[in-house]
Order: sequence, then C-alpha cells, then structure tokens
Amino acid sequence: METDKGTDDTMQLQLALDTVDLPGAKALLDQLHPLVNIVEIGTPFVFREGIKAVTEIKHDYPHLRILADLKIMDAGAYEAKIAFDAGADLVTVLGAAHDATIQGVIGQAEVAKKQVVADLIAVEQSVQRAGELDTMGIDYVCVHTATDMQTQGQDPLHTLRQVQPVLNRAGIAVAGGITSDMMPMIIPFRPDIVIVGSYITGHENPRQAAEAIRTFF
Amino acid sequence: METDKGTDDTMQLQLALDTVDLPGAKALLDQLHPLVNIVEIGTPFVFREGIKAVTEIKHDYPHLRILADLKIMDAGAYEAKIAFDAGADLVTVLGAAHDATIQGVIGQAEVAKKQVVADLIAVEQSVQRAGELDTMGIDYVCVHTATDMQTQGQDPLHTLRQVQPVLNRAGIAVAGGITSDMMPMIIPFRPDIVIVGSYITGHENPRQAAEAIRTFF
Repeated sequence: METDKGTDDTMQLQLALDTVDLPGAKALLDQLHPLVNIVEIGTPFVFREGIKAVTEIKHDYPHLRILADLKIMDAGAYEAKIAFDAGADLVTVLGAAHDATIQGVIGQAEVAKKQVVADLIAVEQSVQRAGELDTMGIDYVCVHTATDMQTQGQDPLHTLRQVQPVLNRAGIAVAGGITSDMMPMIIPFRPDIVIVGSYITGHENPRQAAEAIRTFF
Repeated sequence: METDKGTDDTMQLQLALDTVDLPGAKALLDQLHPLVNIVEIGTPFVFREGIKAVTEIKHDYPHLRILADLKIMDAGAYEAKIAFDAGADLVTVLGAAHDATIQGVIGQAEVAKKQVVADLIAVEQSVQRAGELDTMGIDYVCVHTATDMQTQGQDPLHTLRQVQPVLNRAGIAVAGGITSDMMPMIIPFRPDIVIVGSYITGHENPRQAAEAIRTFF
C-alpha cells in the first residue's frame, strides 16, 4: 500500500555542511538536528578543520549518522580508515577513482562495519559506472551535479532517472543544488538519501528551509 | 649546451608527506629540508590535520614551496582559496574534474599569484586531457600512478612518455612509487618536478634515501 512505507522506503535527509567551521556547524545543528538523518562533513569543511570535525559532531550528536565527504581518489583503504577511526558512519569515494581504490574503501568499510557512498560527480558514463559500482558492492551511489555546473543550469534529475534502474543492490542518493522547489520532481524517484546544503545553510532562516524540505518526506 | 642548464631545466624534488601527522612531518623536515624544493602536504595528511598543516609547515620553512594536495573535484575557486589563504604556493585539482572546476582553481591562483597542478590520476584519456589542461592554462600537469595501482605493477613512465610531447606551456610533474632505482628512467624526460613519498618517508634512513634521489638532479 502506498501509505504503508517500510524502512526501505524511508527517505533520509542529509545536511551538507560545506561553508562552515566547527562553531558554525554546531550552531546550525543546534537548530536543525531534529530534522536531519545524516550530517555531511563536507569536503571544504574537512580541509578547513581536519577529520576532528567528524569526531566532534559525532560526539555531540551520537544519534545522527555522520558522513565524511572525503571524495577519496587514491589509497582507498588507508583514507577510509581515517574517516571511520574518527567516527564517521559513511565515507565517500569518487566514482572516477580506479576500481582498486573503490574496492579498498569497501573492504575497509566491511572491517569497520560502516558504509560507502560512491559519488558520480564528473563521471561521463554515469549509467555504466553506476552499474559497475553496484556490482562492486557499494552501499549508495550518489547522483551529484557539481557546484561548478549548477551555474550552467544543470541539475541531477536527468541522471537520477537514468541511473536508478541499473541499481540492483545499492541505494541511491541525490545531490546538487536541491531546493524545496525541486522536491516535487525528486519525490517520485523515492531516493534513499536527499542531500541538501546551501538551500538550508545559506537561508536566512535555516530551520524554516529544513522544514520546507522535510514536508516532502 | 647540455651543461648550461637554465632555471627552466632545473628539476625540483617534491617530498610527499602522506602518512604523517604534524610532529612527524616536522621531524622529517628537520632532516630533509636542505634536499627538498617543494613540500607536499598530502591528501590524507590534510584530512588528518586540516589545512593548518600547510600554515605551520610554511611558517617553519618559508623558503620551501608548499603544495596542498587537495585533489579538488568541485567548488574550484572556493576550495583553492582555502589552500592559498593558508599559505600554500601550489594546489592540486583533479584532471577528472569538470573544466569549470579547473578554471575556477586557475582563476583563484591568478588572484593569489600562486600555481596549480592538475593531477591525471585515474584519467583514462590522459594524453587528450593533458592537452586540454595545457590549453586551459594549468601550471603543471602531474602524471601520477595511483598508490592503489602500484601494487598491480603500474608505474608512471609510459604515460610520462606520451604526455610530455603534448604540453606546450605547462610544466610536467611525475609521481607514483618513485624510487632511486627508477630515477635513471625518469631523468631523460627532464620533468620539472619529481615527486617522491614513501621511498623517502618510509625508509629506515630518510636522509640517505633523499640523498640517493638527489644525486640524479
């Protein structure tokens, strides 16, 4: 029945924290934590603060899942271990990385009993690659329009439509300039994870923006 | 004349610091700084310590050039600014990134009067991409065999041979498991930058290993 949604049909909201430092992140999460399932410690946030940002946010919000957006491109097992040792529940690897790197990340996640998201950002053959990632045993494939392409009018919906049918085991996450206005187009795909960043964190009222997104869940 | 080498023909040694923390990096540089031209704050080192690692090493060794190996994949201008504001002289962007991202990094480097290295790691059409990067105005193209592929017997020499002729303006850097044994094969190409990591940092006598590399310069 449409209204009888099991956990497999439950969408999760991932809040991407990119343009913040640790105090800024904590101030946002003080307001937003009841509305969020996964906190993304974004790539520039990790560059700015180091992996301790993961540890501190996990300490303050142990009930939330924490994703370290390392966008791993090499040394898969080694770099994934940095994230998991710091307390991350999920780590990202680039779909553009070598298979050996992706397998290294997956292997480390199996040891740590954590999860891996493969980010399709800037992958041209995204449908083919999504199928390969699914076969490799990735937990989630992330359809992701780069920030630098959003200004050229691109959004992730077209790729989401193409990639979803090729995934047999992996869940799907969607990212790239998502706003409440886009949610009615996203909802029909029932992605496992919807990633929202600047629409919430850059809003004059972040709580109101997060609630606007949440009404679609 | 072969013996009359101008600055353009001077190879630089880049020491890649990946598997260290800040105290470990400083202990290594205490021994090695006279032998090194560029200190690479490696990707996992940045993950571990944050960008302050760049600032601290630049403070201690202001005469050395510091490269922040961020492997930028998105938000080019924004992420490059994090590196340059912290004191980095060079930052890396992935050759696999969108052109818009690479152009964002180059634009930020022009503002900061710093330099950009495009890393060809995991790029399949490496010769074509190297030509495009050269046209975009990148300072250096880095031919780079991933750590995760070195165990499969790959090295960067084959790609170095193919890429070098297509570069008109950009310099060339070479990385990926380089040891003193490989130097005789690399020297004929006269790359602008030779990047050595674990051969030195994992050696029982890092100073001796760095001197062994340096004898080829």
